[in-house]
Amino acid sequence: MLGIGFKKVDFYAMFDASAQNAHETAKALLELVEHYENVTDKVKHIKDLEHAGDDITHEILEHLAKTFITPLDREDIQRITKCLDDITDMMDSAANRMMIYKTRQATEESRAFGHLLVKSTAVLVEVFEQLRNLKKADAIMTLLVQVHTHENEGDRLMQQALASLFENEPDAKEILKWKDIYQILERATDRCEDVADVINTILVKHG
Amino acid sequence: MLGIGFKKVDFYAMFDASAQNAHETAKALLELVEHYENVTDKVKHIKDLEHAGDDITHEILEHLAKTFITPLDREDIQRITKCLDDITDMMDSAANRMMIYKTRQATEESRAFGHLLVKSTAVLVEVFEQLRNLKKADAIMTLLVQVHTHENEGDRLMQQALASLFENEPDAKEILKWKDIYQILERATDRCEDVADVINTILVKHG
Amino acid sequence: MLGIGFKKVDFYAMFDASAQNAHETAKALLELVEHYENVTDKVKHIKDLEHAGDDITHEILEHLAKTFITPLDREDIQRITKCLDDITDMMDSAANRMMIYKTRQATEESRAFGHLLVKSTAVLVEVFEQLRNLKKADAIMTLLVQVHTHENEGDRLMQQALASLFENEPDAKEILKWKDIYQILERATDRCEDVADVINTILVKHG
Repeated sequence: MLGIGFKKVDFYAMFDASAQNAHETAKALLELVEHYENVTDKVKHIKDLEHAGDDITHEILEHLAKTFITPLDREDIQRITKCLDDITDMMDSAANRMMIYKTRQATEESRAFGHLLVKSTAVLVEVFEQLRNLKKADAIMTLLVQVHTHENEGDRLMQQALASLFENEPDAKEILKWKDIYQILERATDRCEDVADVINTILVKHG
Repeated sequence: MLGIGFKKVDFYAMFDASAQNAHETAKALLELVEHYENVTDKVKHIKDLEHAGDDITHEILEHLAKTFITPLDREDIQRITKCLDDITDMMDSAANRMMIYKTRQATEESRAFGHLLVKSTAVLVEVFEQLRNLKKADAIMTLLVQVHTHENEGDRLMQQALASLFENEPDAKEILKWKDIYQILERATDRCEDVADVINTILVKHG
Repeated sequence: MLGIGFKKVDFYAMFDASAQNAHETAKALLELVEHYENVTDKVKHIKDLEHAGDDITHEILEHLAKTFITPLDREDIQRITKCLDDITDMMDSAANRMMIYKTRQATEESRAFGHLLVKSTAVLVEVFEQLRNLKKADAIMTLLVQVHTHENEGDRLMQQALASLFENEPDAKEILKWKDIYQILERATDRCEDVADVINTILVKHG
């Protein structure tokens, strides 16, 4: 009577949930920088999403602790979990810094980062939808290449943002604030790439 | 006649020593920021502790190189060793920056970080005392949760420190200095959490 | 007739190429900071080297994906590849920041970092030349110690650079620029050490 009272741990579904939550966070961040008003409320909403992400993370790790045979290498599950958690954390952190620093408005480059993170996390959601079907490696690989492209865009955006900041902003304090925010946002795009890298090695191992 | 001329490599004892040394360093750092005088001497004392930590680190890695069968996974030993080394390094680095930057006094937030790191490293000392007895997983888990709580406190403290800095300090140079110091201190609390994470995976594997 | 039409994947040769490319990049960076003129052209040259490094990186990872039995652990190959790629990336990034920030001249400390990175990458080139002969562990170990020494030099250099910057530069914007550049350069020396650490664990495993 296998199955009765038996709940199969579905890591893929939990990754889905975590990626989906990161994507929601990215959309909330974009909303914040596109319409920079009611900042406290919007930052609080992002913080709530971050807490939801934490819950998913803990759930995955708890299930991992109790699961003897895992569909993917234990270490890969841990890494994916940590990276997805980091992505959401960093977006929350960037939003939080805007509030803490009392920035009066969002910059064009912060909006560009917002768009980039929405795109990258959307691709990650797709990747995890397909991941349980490791046979579709080619389709997944194509998605991973997109994440890498986004990360390169993030690098270029960072350069452009810094150039513009040092060129146009006379106040060193303001430069300090935005440089900090941009770095956190860029790191979020790096983490999306880190997820892609882990998935890549998984495909290779099962290839 | 096993035992004659036979020195069993005790990784647990060496972890103990490294965690204990990190804890000593945290106490020396707290002493520095609580009584910010004789800075050069106190920073030198912290540097000495950092060197002692280096010696322990090298000893562990050397023993690891010569040991065929290890009580924990080789990689976990390496990670723990590296993280404990990093914690001490970062506290040394933060102290050093205060001296280099010629900061005239320590801030309230640097004292709060000092207290936090004393607490976190104290918990790590306890963790390593118990680690050789993997059967006591529950007790260890309770300690690990404390380290996570401390890391969260570190995050909040960082936010508060940055908010206060940008609010109250008019001089961008001073902001730059303290932002740098706070970031190093926050990273030290992150590393305490990294140790906790590795221990967590060990408990899971042996669970 | 094994061998006809058979191209053996030579990871050692590809590591050689990547380390050699990092070394070329270091030399180009040193040339930039020693003779700070025609900056745009020199930065472009470094960017070309970085792209060449990317190609080598992709080649290694592609071969890794297709190779069933690897001469070193799959994970170690990935880590070495990533770290070598990072070293070149960071030097490119530092050069790029100098251009973006429109720094009027290079500093003495940036030249010292240039020299250090030329030295460290030269040692890595030697390490990879010898790596295929794991029997020569002692000779390789001696080289690895040099990389560690360089990383320590990098730490001291960073401290000195920051001390000098905060002491002598009145303009917070200029401090911000150079602090950023120095941090990237220091991180490049850290990554050289990371490569050395991976090689060290390889020697231990095959020891």
